Amino acid sequence: MMNMKLLSLPCRYTLSRHLYSSCSVKDILNTQPEGCKKKLKGWAKAMRKMKENIFVDLDDGSTHRRLQVVIPKNKIPASLTYGCSFEAEGVLVRNPNYQLELVAESINVYGSCVVQDGYPFAPRKTYHPEYVRQHLHIRPRTATFSSLLRLRDKLSSAVRNRFAEDNFIEINAPVLSSNDCEGAGEVFAVKPDSEKLVKEMISKDHQSPMEAFFNGQTYLTVSGQMHLECMARALTKVYTLGPTFRAENSKSRLHLSEFYMIEAEQAFIDNTEELLSSIEKTTSTVVKQLLENSSDEIGHYRNIIGASKDNDPVNMVNVPYEVISYQKACDVLEKENCFKNSMIRGKPLAKEHELFLVKYNGQKPIFVVDWPKDLKPFYTKAIPNNKSLVYAVDLLCPNVGELCGGSVREDDYDVLKEKLSFAGLEDKLHWYLELRKFGNVSTAGFGIGFERFLQVLLDVQNIKDTIAFPRWPHNCKM
Amino acid sequence: MMNMKLLSLPCRYTLSRHLYSSCSVKDILNTQPEGCKKKLKGWAKAMRKMKENIFVDLDDGSTHRRLQVVIPKNKIPASLTYGCSFEAEGVLVRNPNYQLELVAESINVYGSCVVQDGYPFAPRKTYHPEYVRQHLHIRPRTATFSSLLRLRDKLSSAVRNRFAEDNFIEINAPVLSSNDCEGAGEVFAVKPDSEKLVKEMISKDHQSPMEAFFNGQTYLTVSGQMHLECMARALTKVYTLGPTFRAENSKSRLHLSEFYMIEAEQAFIDNTEELLSSIEKTTSTVVKQLLENSSDEIGHYRNIIGASKDNDPVNMVNVPYEVISYQKACDVLEKENCFKNSMIRGKPLAKEHELFLVKYNGQKPIFVVDWPKDLKPFYTKAIPNNKSLVYAVDLLCPNVGELCGGSVREDDYDVLKEKLSFAGLEDKLHWYLELRKFGNVSTAGFGIGFERFLQVLLDVQNIKDTIAFPRWPHNCKM
Repeated sequence: MMNMKLLSLPCRYTLSRHLYSSCSVKDILNTQPEGCKKKLKGWAKAMRKMKENIFVDLDDGSTHRRLQVVIPKNKIPASLTYGCSFEAEGVLVRNPNYQLELVAESINVYGSCVVQDGYPFAPRKTYHPEYVRQHLHIRPRTATFSSLLRLRDKLSSAVRNRFAEDNFIEINAPVLSSNDCEGAGEVFAVKPDSEKLVKEMISKDHQSPMEAFFNGQTYLTVSGQMHLECMARALTKVYTLGPTFRAENSKSRLHLSEFYMIEAEQAFIDNTEELLSSIEKTTSTVVKQLLENSSDEIGHYRNIIGASKDNDPVNMVNVPYEVISYQKACDVLEKENCFKNSMIRGKPLAKEHELFLVKYNGQKPIFVVDWPKDLKPFYTKAIPNNKSLVYAVDLLCPNVGELCGGSVREDDYDVLKEKLSFAGLEDKLHWYLELRKFGNVSTAGFGIGFERFLQVLLDVQNIKDTIAFPRWPHNCKM
Repeated sequence: MMNMKLLSLPCRYTLSRHLYSSCSVKDILNTQPEGCKKKLKGWAKAMRKMKENIFVDLDDGSTHRRLQVVIPKNKIPASLTYGCSFEAEGVLVRNPNYQLELVAESINVYGSCVVQDGYPFAPRKTYHPEYVRQHLHIRPRTATFSSLLRLRDKLSSAVRNRFAEDNFIEINAPVLSSNDCEGAGEVFAVKPDSEKLVKEMISKDHQSPMEAFFNGQTYLTVSGQMHLECMARALTKVYTLGPTFRAENSKSRLHLSEFYMIEAEQAFIDNTEELLSSIEKTTSTVVKQLLENSSDEIGHYRNIIGASKDNDPVNMVNVPYEVISYQKACDVLEKENCFKNSMIRGKPLAKEHELFLVKYNGQKPIFVVDWPKDLKPFYTKAIPNNKSLVYAVDLLCPNVGELCGGSVREDDYDVLKEKLSFAGLEDKLHWYLELRKFGNVSTAGFGIGFERFLQVLLDVQNIKDTIAFPRWPHNCKM
């Protein structure tokens, strides 16, 4: 070690840096510091001109609630208009409605906002979500979407809390993977953009540009499940909340090319009952937590978008949810003639069938269990006393239909080996098979579409309005 | 609404499902339920045979601490060997060392583990991390790596807590992006794997397969910064903790092709002082939280891997950190002749230079500020009274050198327009420029390499040992 004390620094970096303290609208409204002098920074939203004063709603994005700033007419800069960014300094007083407002002593406009110059949102107008979505980079400045973003943040915290409280360990499942999981073919493949780099890295004859970088085809993950199964065999309870991808040419209101999934996997579960219990514990405690902590903002958001009262998030809290077998669900659907595509026994349920079952159950969540094995992936475990059925479950919910899918995984080495061989995946998934060879245990797990969860909670019609930067076919802006 | 009460269910789904309660080693050691009868499930680690009994360490991954299970010789199944999974039922008693142990009444082995059959880890042996890494799917069963995974989970919770407490909103920056951020060229490009789908989706003449799906070249993100800048202009304080990618042919101990970044962006910051304050608040409060909550496991991990005492995480807690200008750093480095590559004024610092500066500062974190503008990206703001320098900062730390980079962003519409035009990015980053047009504010932000943060905290030599599924050139297994 050498002599250390030497650094004589420019004083501007030692004097003021620890004096800064931020003051947000959220803090003000939570602490109600009546009579105090405060400086606030944000954007001007609603503005009302009166005889003596102008009233401006200051929005800094920290809460859906805004702070009214009262500005005497002689202190109003010309550039203070709707949409501009500004700083207001003044005293917090209670108005006749007993609400805190800031009586401004000084106003400083940072950036003006001239609507006529191309700002896409005029004051006091509401727009169709599709119009708003065309202006992705300005969209967060709308009351609706900034509220959505705050609630998205709250949802992910609530999910992480639920798992942490129950000793689940968060794993970052990889985005880049050499297996395409279910062999469904709807995957994106990856290569370096630089042709030069690709050429440099080709290490074998006949290696394609798609294989050069990683020594093999590499895909964007469609699910972290198999990686979680590996982790559950060491840590018992694991979960992930991360991006997953589908190269599907679908523009439906329920699909994105990049979306988030909550996935959990637990060792020592070998039956549907415990799996159902784990799923409904997740959805119910998460929604309960949100209704307790963010009911104000949830109400605000649902109110702006005109959410249906039929789709009440409280329905997610009340457990146990109903359970119906696939066969029984088919019985119910067979009696109805209201479908565009009639239900065919032994085939997957269509979205309209899923939504019908939810409606049939009083718009409450409903589990469908005991599926025919041909409808579920190879890794799903067969039910011992009826080998044509598997331990799989879908959770159906209002607005979206399938919110969650899960299963008990095949844990028998020989059975899985045969299935992999049949699917032509034995080489590629050797590691997955080998998990069953040493210190093997049963595992079960599930995946919940994160954006669909927001759709259920908030009654959002289009999934593209639940994520900051939606990607779908022919659309990857910014 | 129709008549709802109809669902008669198979009783196996209503009776038992809410009786299940898990019991982990962590719970037992936290609650110390002496005298209680418990059932535990996990894997057999260390085993010691004595005259009357066999002592087995049960590891269920919930904690680095293990529960000793005492099994009378007549109750030991033959398949109970090192590495097997088993269930032990019995009574918790205190041994002469006053530690809880389970005196087993019954043992049930789930999956045997025959080391001779290819299990890569023999009992009582330690292996080089490089050997362990070759068995990625079994690696989490080693004491070292399971500990790392738990600490990784704790680090991400601590980061999220720090930001949530300060009213930052978490944004999921997109993985798929149509811009390659800094135009550095070290990006991965993405296309659907299915040739058929690509053909179907070609919508314009001369559109390449790489452009068909999204109507343009699409890349894996190298940074969420620009997207966060967009969000900070509505929500003031935002952050992200997600995967980022580099198509670099580098096998260094500090680089991965897929890694995680903590990125934060704050509106209304226009100077280095507040930026430094925000960075050191992040690193110091996060490390403080970890040392308070997980010191036991941190000590355990550092002990197994033989971490150096010189690299003490407490150094991250003590603020303020030292600050040195780039010029001053060059003065210091110029006096030394110990480098493989000598420092050239006006050029980037090499890793050995960074590590020297840290050593020079007593192995404590040190900020380097006021960089020449040519060494930093186009979006970095020039210092008003010296246009050859920019408001950029690197935080250098033991073991890794650069842990964090940040800057005040160029917020002047005209200046940025010129820079974009010079870099040929005006068309592509039109949206980024337009952020400065309406209700503009200054912003500043930073990015911390998540895996490097673990390297600093735990003194891990190779970054590949800090992430569940490391990806690097020619390596993307599983």
